[in-house]
Amino acid sequence: MPARLYLEDLHIGDRFSSQATTLDAAQIKAFATQFDPQPFHLDEAAAEQSFFGGLAASGWHTAALTMRLLVESVPLHGGLIGAGSEITWPQPTRPGDQLRVESEVLEIVPSRSRPDRGLVTCQSLTLNQNGDVVQRSVAKLLAFRRPQAS
Amino acid sequence: MPARLYLEDLHIGDRFSSQATTLDAAQIKAFATQFDPQPFHLDEAAAEQSFFGGLAASGWHTAALTMRLLVESVPLHGGLIGAGSEITWPQPTRPGDQLRVESEVLEIVPSRSRPDRGLVTCQSLTLNQNGDVVQRSVAKLLAFRRPQAS
Repeated sequence: MPARLYLEDLHIGDRFSSQATTLDAAQIKAFATQFDPQPFHLDEAAAEQSFFGGLAASGWHTAALTMRLLVESVPLHGGLIGAGSEITWPQPTRPGDQLRVESEVLEIVPSRSRPDRGLVTCQSLTLNQNGDVVQRSVAKLLAFRRPQAS
Repeated sequence: MPARLYLEDLHIGDRFSSQATTLDAAQIKAFATQFDPQPFHLDEAAAEQSFFGGLAASGWHTAALTMRLLVESVPLHGGLIGAGSEITWPQPTRPGDQLRVESEVLEIVPSRSRPDRGLVTCQSLTLNQNGDVVQRSVAKLLAFRRPQAS
């Protein structure tokens, strides 16, 4: 377990790499059944005839798996609390893909009104086993300052 | 089942309202266990001591539930295929919340290179039973033109 980082421990350009995780067709269909029940996420034959040309994971499944990899790889004190995120999915996630996440700190903005915290802009690229980017997200994460000795 | 809409059926300002769905603490913890295993999404006592001051759903859980409500309420021909989305979570989603989604077409841009399609910018507000916005998303959705008789 890496040390937990406070706002002042972070620097622009800091990078974090996750472990890898693999997803299969059954997981893609289970997620889609619950949250994104569309034929191209549920059924191989229907997916062949669709825009995706084959079974593809819901983008929200890719986003959720990315979050798990971020929780394991970006050790902010107090946890990963996002105010928001901009996401694009340049390529679909496919059955059998092995995903990992590379994150980089883009910006650090201390709060003016709350001196104990700030917002960290973090880009996370979710890559498959071929190095293709299946998701790019740019998130605003809350980071806390190290408490002062009183 | 509403009629399926093509690109030329859509207009700026068009609105779509979803049904409501309720989520409970068990669902919040099950999603978090799989995708966002942080104490404030998993354990009431730990959540009380956290930034959230009580159990809160992962933002990605709110996003995934929003997707299901969108699939049921925004009837685009060919399905809901997002190129990307900007998301903010102004308020946490809590156990027992009843969520619904109000969507509005903000922009329609026909593709220059692909005359059979375009991108539709759609804002979706996810509201709880008190009318609080728990998620605002602005997504770019693919929409297809009605096929011409040949």
